[in-house]
Amino acid sequence: MIIDCHGHYTTAPQAHTDWRRDQLTALLSGAGTPEYPSISDDEIRESIETQQLRMLRERGSDMTIFSPRASAMGHHEGDLEANRAWSRVSNDLVARVVDLFPSAFIGVCQLPQSPGAPLDAAISELRRCVDMGFVGLNLNPDPSGGHWTSPPLTDPYWFPLYEVMVELDVPAMVHVSASSNPAFHATGAHYMNADTTAFMQLLAGDLFGTFPELRLVIPHGGGAVPYHWGRYRGLADMLGQPPLDTHVMRNVFFDTCVYHQAGIDLLVEVIDTDNILFGSEMVGAVRGIDPTTGHYFDDTRRYVEAADLSGAQREQIYAGNALRVYPRLAAQLGR
Amino acid sequence: MIIDCHGHYTTAPQAHTDWRRDQLTALLSGAGTPEYPSISDDEIRESIETQQLRMLRERGSDMTIFSPRASAMGHHEGDLEANRAWSRVSNDLVARVVDLFPSAFIGVCQLPQSPGAPLDAAISELRRCVDMGFVGLNLNPDPSGGHWTSPPLTDPYWFPLYEVMVELDVPAMVHVSASSNPAFHATGAHYMNADTTAFMQLLAGDLFGTFPELRLVIPHGGGAVPYHWGRYRGLADMLGQPPLDTHVMRNVFFDTCVYHQAGIDLLVEVIDTDNILFGSEMVGAVRGIDPTTGHYFDDTRRYVEAADLSGAQREQIYAGNALRVYPRLAAQLGR
Repeated sequence: MIIDCHGHYTTAPQAHTDWRRDQLTALLSGAGTPEYPSISDDEIRESIETQQLRMLRERGSDMTIFSPRASAMGHHEGDLEANRAWSRVSNDLVARVVDLFPSAFIGVCQLPQSPGAPLDAAISELRRCVDMGFVGLNLNPDPSGGHWTSPPLTDPYWFPLYEVMVELDVPAMVHVSASSNPAFHATGAHYMNADTTAFMQLLAGDLFGTFPELRLVIPHGGGAVPYHWGRYRGLADMLGQPPLDTHVMRNVFFDTCVYHQAGIDLLVEVIDTDNILFGSEMVGAVRGIDPTTGHYFDDTRRYVEAADLSGAQREQIYAGNALRVYPRLAAQLGR
Repeated sequence: MIIDCHGHYTTAPQAHTDWRRDQLTALLSGAGTPEYPSISDDEIRESIETQQLRMLRERGSDMTIFSPRASAMGHHEGDLEANRAWSRVSNDLVARVVDLFPSAFIGVCQLPQSPGAPLDAAISELRRCVDMGFVGLNLNPDPSGGHWTSPPLTDPYWFPLYEVMVELDVPAMVHVSASSNPAFHATGAHYMNADTTAFMQLLAGDLFGTFPELRLVIPHGGGAVPYHWGRYRGLADMLGQPPLDTHVMRNVFFDTCVYHQAGIDLLVEVIDTDNILFGSEMVGAVRGIDPTTGHYFDDTRRYVEAADLSGAQREQIYAGNALRVYPRLAAQLGR
């Protein structure tokens, strides 16, 4: 079985995306919130069958842990109330995808975050989504959209959310949204930087001393971290922190969203197999075909197949680790 | 010959560092700027002979392209005038190191940048330092210290500096200073993020169409970039930009400040040898010994020696590329 831990509904019907635009326009002008459009099951089916589901089958994967489009979360754009409504309709749309294709998709929710706002709305939405069968959440460490005004992930600001994550036994993928800072290209800089930044916050803190059961997935192969694994091992030592394998890596996992063979080879060489979850972020940031291979850049299964791994290790990366990190998925598959 | 392209005077005499602290205190209180202390040649000799020079010899390198301590540039701390004075004394101190050890060190300057300020002071200081024999500069793409308030490196804001760099035929290392943003650990997140961010700015723009002779060194092995080389090749394609090897990589170089074997192996596998400059950032961010090897994390020569490279390629990385990227160094060595 092959579970892709990292897919977003990047192909959501246009009416859904347009509603967010209209909602934000109305917010700025003081007009009332527009009514959310009616979207048919057929529209949803088509948006999925022609894209994610087709590619899932072509690439030989079985299912995707699926969440609303990350770049559209836009926590920096609306206020808390607007983002609450946007999260709700976005998560409901993912729930409909899961209902239509229950063997191929399982839900992970977007949270109604807003810079500086308390996390009560996020916690309520997380509970609502878990009640609908969702198995995890996307946590934005920088709801300001590239201005990094929130405290580090190790700060007590985030603890109320972590308490509920532990109670519900759901992991978070640490995933930023779009960038409103001209310095940062979203998928080329902000995403990578957020992954690296989050890891370093966790390395320098003791979050997992407080929350030993908390699990965080750092996407995009861990940003810069595996490539600089010696630097991070050395920094842990310099800062008087425990070695990474007995500290951060008990609770942190990287996906395989690294779009060339040499990158995946490095990932599986330096990171323990237990800490790697198969992911592709398909259909996502990079949609073209690599002229050097003739295959899609984000067809990450090919790289994992070609990597120096035993069959048992590959099985862990493809499914075993995901079932451990997302126990609610394991429970649903067991039924 | 082995040239380390990335060394900072991290062991500068305490009186120098204390003066900056006192200068900033005086600036805040409105007091007059304190007098810069007298620092003897013996103090400088000792700070170098017991540290950088000893390690340079122990590790079998010949010389270091040497600049003021990056984390102490602190462009976000003083105003432009204070930073002008601080750059001047910091560069003068590097010039004294070069005078005392002319076969082992060559100077690269810190610039008096300040968030939002024009670049005239930086240009004047660059000219002054090149007149003293310096061969390059460190350019901070984020003088705000982790708030990223400056325009991208492709913006005309930076062009007056680039014009003078081309005129003087000196390259810049793109290097941030300390972080004043609690989200970013300096050497574990801000440095890596800046490298990644700068590369993506260059990928998305056409700076080298305007300045075909401009040369930029992105340190720390290029941040996250080589590990995600497929992503960047794919993003260039998605953005309708030329392939990396015929665009950004004609003018951009990565150093070897990657502190483990697997990272260096990936770097030399995916990045053309022409674009790699030997560097260690010694004595720098990571000073300990790797328990898995028994050697210093930042003894990057060991990794380059063990990498899959021909003798000619290794020679390029060790010296040939540096002499090409820093022609003023080549000219001085030729004399």
